[in-house]
Amino acid sequence: MSSQLRVLVIGGVACGPKTASRLKRLMPDADVTMVERDSLVSYGACGLPYYVEGQFINIKELTHTQVGLPRTPDFFKDTKGFNVLTRTEATKIDRENKTVHVRNLDTGDESDLAYDKLVLATGGSAFRPPIPGVDLKNVWFMTHPDHASSLLNEIKEQGLENAVMVGAGFIGIEMTEAMINRNMDVTMVEMADQIMPGVLDKDVAAYAQIQLEDNDVELVLGERVVGLEGGDDGKVTGVRTDKQTIKADCVVIAVGTRPNDMLAREAGLQCERGIIVNKNGQTSDPDIYAGGDCVVNDYVSRTVAQHMYVPLGSTANKHGRVIANHIAGCPTPFSGITGTGVVKCFDYTVGRTGMTETMAKNLNIDYEVVTWGGPDRPHYMKNARYFIIKMLAAKRDRKLLGVQVAGAGDGAKRLDVSASTIYFGGTLEEMADIDLAYAPPFSPPIDPIATCAQVLSNKMDGLAKGISAFEAKALMDQGDVVLLDVREPDENKMLKMAYDKVIHIPLGELRARMDEVPRDKEILSFCKISLRGYEAQLVLNAAGYDRVRFIEGGHEAWPFELDYLGM
Amino acid sequence: MSSQLRVLVIGGVACGPKTASRLKRLMPDADVTMVERDSLVSYGACGLPYYVEGQFINIKELTHTQVGLPRTPDFFKDTKGFNVLTRTEATKIDRENKTVHVRNLDTGDESDLAYDKLVLATGGSAFRPPIPGVDLKNVWFMTHPDHASSLLNEIKEQGLENAVMVGAGFIGIEMTEAMINRNMDVTMVEMADQIMPGVLDKDVAAYAQIQLEDNDVELVLGERVVGLEGGDDGKVTGVRTDKQTIKADCVVIAVGTRPNDMLAREAGLQCERGIIVNKNGQTSDPDIYAGGDCVVNDYVSRTVAQHMYVPLGSTANKHGRVIANHIAGCPTPFSGITGTGVVKCFDYTVGRTGMTETMAKNLNIDYEVVTWGGPDRPHYMKNARYFIIKMLAAKRDRKLLGVQVAGAGDGAKRLDVSASTIYFGGTLEEMADIDLAYAPPFSPPIDPIATCAQVLSNKMDGLAKGISAFEAKALMDQGDVVLLDVREPDENKMLKMAYDKVIHIPLGELRARMDEVPRDKEILSFCKISLRGYEAQLVLNAAGYDRVRFIEGGHEAWPFELDYLGM
Repeated sequence: MSSQLRVLVIGGVACGPKTASRLKRLMPDADVTMVERDSLVSYGACGLPYYVEGQFINIKELTHTQVGLPRTPDFFKDTKGFNVLTRTEATKIDRENKTVHVRNLDTGDESDLAYDKLVLATGGSAFRPPIPGVDLKNVWFMTHPDHASSLLNEIKEQGLENAVMVGAGFIGIEMTEAMINRNMDVTMVEMADQIMPGVLDKDVAAYAQIQLEDNDVELVLGERVVGLEGGDDGKVTGVRTDKQTIKADCVVIAVGTRPNDMLAREAGLQCERGIIVNKNGQTSDPDIYAGGDCVVNDYVSRTVAQHMYVPLGSTANKHGRVIANHIAGCPTPFSGITGTGVVKCFDYTVGRTGMTETMAKNLNIDYEVVTWGGPDRPHYMKNARYFIIKMLAAKRDRKLLGVQVAGAGDGAKRLDVSASTIYFGGTLEEMADIDLAYAPPFSPPIDPIATCAQVLSNKMDGLAKGISAFEAKALMDQGDVVLLDVREPDENKMLKMAYDKVIHIPLGELRARMDEVPRDKEILSFCKISLRGYEAQLVLNAAGYDRVRFIEGGHEAWPFELDYLGM
Repeated sequence: MSSQLRVLVIGGVACGPKTASRLKRLMPDADVTMVERDSLVSYGACGLPYYVEGQFINIKELTHTQVGLPRTPDFFKDTKGFNVLTRTEATKIDRENKTVHVRNLDTGDESDLAYDKLVLATGGSAFRPPIPGVDLKNVWFMTHPDHASSLLNEIKEQGLENAVMVGAGFIGIEMTEAMINRNMDVTMVEMADQIMPGVLDKDVAAYAQIQLEDNDVELVLGERVVGLEGGDDGKVTGVRTDKQTIKADCVVIAVGTRPNDMLAREAGLQCERGIIVNKNGQTSDPDIYAGGDCVVNDYVSRTVAQHMYVPLGSTANKHGRVIANHIAGCPTPFSGITGTGVVKCFDYTVGRTGMTETMAKNLNIDYEVVTWGGPDRPHYMKNARYFIIKMLAAKRDRKLLGVQVAGAGDGAKRLDVSASTIYFGGTLEEMADIDLAYAPPFSPPIDPIATCAQVLSNKMDGLAKGISAFEAKALMDQGDVVLLDVREPDENKMLKMAYDKVIHIPLGELRARMDEVPRDKEILSFCKISLRGYEAQLVLNAAGYDRVRFIEGGHEAWPFELDYLGM
């Protein structure tokens, strides 16, 4: 008994079971116990919006294995070989005596569990904003299968129709889509003046917002929710913001996750926003590990050292493996994260990896940035879809800093290639050289992520002179610039930019009709995706025009109003 | 005039126009001329099977820009600023006088074109096997839009019904699917005993072959085509192999591409299988560059130095940029390729990057290998699809060597992450740590490519003891082994392995019923995807059983017969 290593794991959703399972595979003789406050363990919380949406009809899919076995304490004992105590809350760590005080939430029994190694996998909790009314009926947070079950149940039972989604982050978008698919009217309220604040730059968010609006989501940005209103029956009736009251018979709140680090803090372990751990998952007490949504991550970067709190099931699983490997004496240090996040937003894939432009600015990094737009496959393929990529790289060494994607094209694949490049410290030129898998059903001969890297490379070299849609719009609002539309006549007839100073000369005629382009004005050239717009800039440069830029991404990436004619 | 750099480009399909276009952007004053033997330039040859299939109805999609402009000599002159001479064949390079002798194929006029820098982008040609009958009517090679047009036309006009596809490589598979979609009966004849020889290992190919058979493709493997038979009308009537004659009213031949390197060879430039170039695209004559399907590529690897002939549009475009950049004085050396290739095979995505096991064996590399199978997304998502990954890494430094994918899951994304990892010289552990984009519509929390890397890592550490399906089948054929089915009773009722020595003990009962497992036999454990099979191996190991392995990928990855019961 004394030779058996005793490992105690607090928390049983993602990192906890991963650590315990891996550890038993590495050390079959270890005495491993996992403690969980809830009655459920090891459930797929990320699947909750998809249950509400109707992707699957039995909530057990989230709590059972692929072949239908419930992940109960017995399941883990029988198949993985470790003990699970549910409905058991850890209340205090005694680091000196190496015990954890626990309480059974059903019986009230208390006891001390001894450990040689302790693993804190206490997760995160949905932030409950300190406003009146969050405890009203028909108000949901969305972190547990019970929440999803009861929401769906009440939608059906009560015939709920008017939902307000508070928060426009990942879960906000997923839940919005889920409720739209349940035929509800959904208003999305976000304090910031964009969706996915902190995740996306405002211009990429603006592009994604069109997709929400196209799917009948009522977007309310830049309003702070100050309270929820209820009726005599205790049910929510409305959401009060600093500007208006929005009628609601159903409210879902997802305004961020907070690390459950109280146990660690009370034990004197080093914390900031979440528990601080080293690359092997050890806290400031080397016999205590922590992983999952309760810890703060290192940000993988050769440019800056910083911490980042990004609670994600993928990272939690990595932590679990790293912790188990270190306990078992075969360490595999974890490099950290690159802040990758992705969300399906109706037909769009929206996400980012690495730094946003806002982050790079705040960190005072000397960067160059570009937005590219185009199809994800050859235009002749039926499954070709348009999307935009915004990319940042460091001017100093041309290393990729960050990538954001939005649109119907396959952005997830390009995020993964970008995350790989950032992880390995690759430059723009290196990323463009990777031998990516090419065939028409999957991508054009030059993959969009390579094209975008090349355009950014051209921009760094001073060859491509692009201007973002936001900057172009600002200049247009001042009325100082002339737009040069280099599309074909047919294209120009179909769709125009909503602006009064536009010269239309198809690219093929530009060399011959150059005298129509004023030399004393700033020129912004564009076409559908601004490939011809870029050519036009070069043609004009070669003829001595200096003040020419192309509008990045063309009118396809334009997140503002356009005049559709003849359509 | 004398200060103007004269650049002559021979070949106008992919690398040629890319080089010329890029060069004019970098050097607007350069005098750039592109010479092409054909009347068409800059067409998307990779799209031909998709035209035949019916993805698009106008072949002009392949020869016109996205907005419908034909890529004619005038188009390139007007929009890109370089000259194009079509129907013009380059017949001889005079390196001393720096001229190329050309002949107009319509007028017969001959002349010499002077160059300061010459770019050979002469492409590749479909190999025409030296057998009787290849010139018969209704026999197609598939390299030019005219071929696709006439094939589709004759399918409709003559009502062609019985196609034989000779060659089971990328084009063979694409054309087979195209013709099946045109309601033809298709027999695929391949000399090797597997599809995609040289591209895939036999076991991965075997798995993909099931998909061809499931789509009613008649697979004839291991037979050499010795001739085509024709009728009195000069039309093909059958394909004669070394074993049989197959009836055919339509034959498509795609048995490899040969580099068009005659011009270079005759000029004394260094060649092997294709023109040899350095990282900047220069041939053995520094004023002569070459790129695209006429050159042989460096293989990116920190393990071996070798050349690889892989003609691909994606690589041709990279070459074009590299060559133009070097001519313009801003070199961006090309690292080479990793032999990435992908093909859509009905509902399957099939491909590879890096080395196959066969290649690693031939190169005498000390590698470890594993096959993983499972869904590409959480099992509760409707769009979750099953696929297999076969992965190799070097034992010496655990660097990723190669990855193959096959199945309905999104293998293309995982190939791209693998290609990135190989490009950057990453290890298994590094690849598993990349912060890939996770959300249920896109992947499970631990991405399949990371899971597979971890299993391979476990195998290298001696923890996971896997056996491939092929090896398992060989042992079963000898009758020496006992299979241990650790699935649930319901699963076992539905589907069984076609073998007589199977013990069925669900994983959860294994610890209690261990005495049913013989200690004197070799045990092969399995389940649906062999996650439980792996657990069973560990449970038995811990109890002193040494001769236990799990069948990699479980019965889902089993490319042989299974007994489906109760279905």
